[in-house]
Amino acid sequence: MKIALAQINVHVGNFAANEAKMLDYIKEAKAGGADLVVFPELATVGYPPRDFLEFEDFIEAGEAVVNNLAKAAVGIAVIVGSPSKNPVIEGKDLYNSAYFLAEGEIKVVQHKTLLPTYDIFDEYRYFEPASEWNLVEYKGQRIAMIVCEDSWNVGNENPLYKINPMDMLMEQNPDLIINVSASPFSYAHAANRIETMQANVARYDLPMYYVNHVGAQTEILFDGGSLVIAADGTVIDEMPYFEEAIGYYDTEVVERGEVQNGERPKEKMQLIHDALVMGVRNYFGKLGFKRAVLGLSGGIDSALVAALAARALGPENVRCVLLPSQFSSDHSVNDARKLAQNLGCQYDIIPIQPVYESFMQALEPHFFGTEFGLPEENLQARSRGVLLMALSNKFGPILLNTSNKSEMAVGYGTLYGDMCGGLSVIGDVYKTECYELAEYINKDGEVIPTNIITKPPSAELRPDQLDSDSLPPYDQLDAVLYEYIENSKSPQDIIEMGYDAALVKRTLRLVNINEFKRHQTAPVLRVSSKAFGMGRRMPIVAKYLA
Amino acid sequence: MKIALAQINVHVGNFAANEAKMLDYIKEAKAGGADLVVFPELATVGYPPRDFLEFEDFIEAGEAVVNNLAKAAVGIAVIVGSPSKNPVIEGKDLYNSAYFLAEGEIKVVQHKTLLPTYDIFDEYRYFEPASEWNLVEYKGQRIAMIVCEDSWNVGNENPLYKINPMDMLMEQNPDLIINVSASPFSYAHAANRIETMQANVARYDLPMYYVNHVGAQTEILFDGGSLVIAADGTVIDEMPYFEEAIGYYDTEVVERGEVQNGERPKEKMQLIHDALVMGVRNYFGKLGFKRAVLGLSGGIDSALVAALAARALGPENVRCVLLPSQFSSDHSVNDARKLAQNLGCQYDIIPIQPVYESFMQALEPHFFGTEFGLPEENLQARSRGVLLMALSNKFGPILLNTSNKSEMAVGYGTLYGDMCGGLSVIGDVYKTECYELAEYINKDGEVIPTNIITKPPSAELRPDQLDSDSLPPYDQLDAVLYEYIENSKSPQDIIEMGYDAALVKRTLRLVNINEFKRHQTAPVLRVSSKAFGMGRRMPIVAKYLA
Repeated sequence: MKIALAQINVHVGNFAANEAKMLDYIKEAKAGGADLVVFPELATVGYPPRDFLEFEDFIEAGEAVVNNLAKAAVGIAVIVGSPSKNPVIEGKDLYNSAYFLAEGEIKVVQHKTLLPTYDIFDEYRYFEPASEWNLVEYKGQRIAMIVCEDSWNVGNENPLYKINPMDMLMEQNPDLIINVSASPFSYAHAANRIETMQANVARYDLPMYYVNHVGAQTEILFDGGSLVIAADGTVIDEMPYFEEAIGYYDTEVVERGEVQNGERPKEKMQLIHDALVMGVRNYFGKLGFKRAVLGLSGGIDSALVAALAARALGPENVRCVLLPSQFSSDHSVNDARKLAQNLGCQYDIIPIQPVYESFMQALEPHFFGTEFGLPEENLQARSRGVLLMALSNKFGPILLNTSNKSEMAVGYGTLYGDMCGGLSVIGDVYKTECYELAEYINKDGEVIPTNIITKPPSAELRPDQLDSDSLPPYDQLDAVLYEYIENSKSPQDIIEMGYDAALVKRTLRLVNINEFKRHQTAPVLRVSSKAFGMGRRMPIVAKYLA
Repeated sequence: MKIALAQINVHVGNFAANEAKMLDYIKEAKAGGADLVVFPELATVGYPPRDFLEFEDFIEAGEAVVNNLAKAAVGIAVIVGSPSKNPVIEGKDLYNSAYFLAEGEIKVVQHKTLLPTYDIFDEYRYFEPASEWNLVEYKGQRIAMIVCEDSWNVGNENPLYKINPMDMLMEQNPDLIINVSASPFSYAHAANRIETMQANVARYDLPMYYVNHVGAQTEILFDGGSLVIAADGTVIDEMPYFEEAIGYYDTEVVERGEVQNGERPKEKMQLIHDALVMGVRNYFGKLGFKRAVLGLSGGIDSALVAALAARALGPENVRCVLLPSQFSSDHSVNDARKLAQNLGCQYDIIPIQPVYESFMQALEPHFFGTEFGLPEENLQARSRGVLLMALSNKFGPILLNTSNKSEMAVGYGTLYGDMCGGLSVIGDVYKTECYELAEYINKDGEVIPTNIITKPPSAELRPDQLDSDSLPPYDQLDAVLYEYIENSKSPQDIIEMGYDAALVKRTLRLVNINEFKRHQTAPVLRVSSKAFGMGRRMPIVAKYLA
């Protein structure tokens, strides 16, 4: 049997486009001689559909897509993920299902058993777990058809679920496993995916065909990297990252263990770079926007965002705005200008001093007798935010947010100022990683001017200000943040790792008391195992390490 | 046996304060002659603790509180909700448990079975469901000790779960049910609570003692209203709303069906009013802030927020700022001034025209040749936002957001402008409800000047502007929004109810394409069954009714 895995980029709720795309791939797979073409989890409705799943017409639109795909499943079989209604009154109203379509109709529907409900996942919010398991029989093969998380409870030291659906399916003697998946990217995820699927084939002694989504759905990025693994653990193929693709696999060839491409290289900065470029491109593309605007400060964060946006949207679609104040150094303006020129982006200069002064004048009766301080710094950041939003509103480009993960963590940013923007591009990239990413972008020649990378970071909101005046050195700060955010370590744990106790306590307190700022920021493209946003849900009014 | 129900206002993560409060109530209950005092669900850590539950030190701090309460459980027994660790490797790491403490130690731990994972609830994110059920035997009574949702699957047409833990406990012949709960307020919830608990006592023929939280945890409001219901369905007592209280109940008196206070009156506007006042008060109190600032436009929304804030914080702690532009009418300024005077709040006037003009001047080279439009309107709103935030940053008061639910729904507001603020006070109150709430506030005499209530609503961002220029009449708009947001109806369903098809489609489209704005706003005090915020999770980049 020849199996085609189609890792596709669908669009949440865009039923017509998703159906048309899958019909095209069915045709292509047929032309390619496939007996079966496999699409990812919930491919009809897009992943994650979130609370649209609570709307009956949304579910029915997904059912209509399945029915239309079934009609096209003639001379080829199709597996596709889609929600299905639970006919039993008790329990949640939906299942997260894999459909096997053949001979023009729906032949088998197998529901997902393990419903991820952690980090960015909310599946038990919507779905009832499966309580029955059946194989698909097709062309002499007995197929165990499962959905994503169903394979992720194997090989863990601390399994999240008490059962594994494959254990039940094994009683029916399957020949192979097909997993339809929606397994979001993080920079270590592709390696984990291979390891976990190898644990599955080892446990069940069966080959695994694993198809993943590709593309961005708001902040959630899918890298593709669909897998075919032989029963002995050999990686027969790992499909491309960050692009749509179809792969063809002869079950007999897989059984013989003949490697097609094998594993792909996994270099952290390349993965993050490609993920962010795709994330920006899909955010704009799926919203129907083309153009971006952003403020260039001359610092590394905005430089990175400009470079990534230029790659994602084309430099002709990225408008850079330099917004110097009386505290901006000459090198900042020059560096920013140089960057825009390197990128080939339009740039404008709008000095903010007159606006800032008009604010100070309006506030003069109230501020009289007070000293220059944080409120005045915020006024500069907000003057910039308002000017950028005015250009966005007038001419239509979406404002990109340029905050990095370190400053978002500790609240080193101005709400409604530099925290403005429709999408946070590098909000899941620590400051120390920003430098690595800049070096990666410059690997074939200077894109980001060297001076932007080498000079000490500064917000330039008062004379001779440096980040290091207010914050610990970024290497220490980021290490502590990583242990707290990604690893959920306690202050005591982190101190015992050798970090300064005062630094640890101060840092964790800053993270917790600044939850209110992160609550009001743009979605953050997720590249780590724990990003700010929907995957990290914290109370605002709380008193823990605060 | 004499049972004391203590409906208390705890604080998420404030272990010391929560413990001290419960120790005080244990003393008080003992002095009041109680054999047993009952605290709500997760009372040690506060509800909802959200992802703090993923931190081991947070769990251990909760365990320490339980141990200290156990030490105080001498001469009296205590029931309290708290997380407990799952000793089994498979499954989630925690249980959501009710502890029975007596004779200085932990005697029984019963885990929650039904884990709400919908709307604002995320319990399956953290907790493993119970798979064993045991009674507590104490003073000759056999007590079925259950946790909140465990009683909410009875009497529904469409039950969310396949089992009811009380069915298992009934095999052991309990004499009464004690439910420790965290059951958030909405304006119809107290009535639902009584109905659902009556369905429980009818099904099991047992009296029910139901203790709830009171107080606000960021946007989630708890109304108290703890219940004692006799086996025949008689409401023996419904404890007060929106205040801490302890109630004493003799099991024999309850068995005889002697009513103590019975049901309380449930008037929608009074409930919403009291809930919002508590919400504002607790938001500030638990963050350690005293003072608020807000912009008064002369319209009804900011007037309502000012009145509610003055009641919550005291008028001396509410600073009103009038920010007129060249488009502000005289009556707006006069009405706003009158309101501030009625409330006894400090008010200042800061005209925004000079700031607006300095923005226009800075943008002149770019805006040259374009017409006045939405970007210029937004500039006014953002000038106000920046000025208000400057006062907040300089003098410390928290800026209150004044958006109502109708405008938040359709995106009729300026991001980083009038959508600024740390807390959205009336973001779950539709515009038509705002008028009802204003009338309620004025019931004993004019607080909000009548002209504010009677004049046609206007954003006053261009000459002679009225909301009705851009939006359908609010009675129609709100009715359609309610069917879509609260009832998850499809456009077709709503049109079939008799609403104009074009109006319905336009409205629902506006709701969906403005998700990006709501994503960046303050937490919204929740008073309805479906508020914007953590209970309504929508994709931003999607193509559904958009």
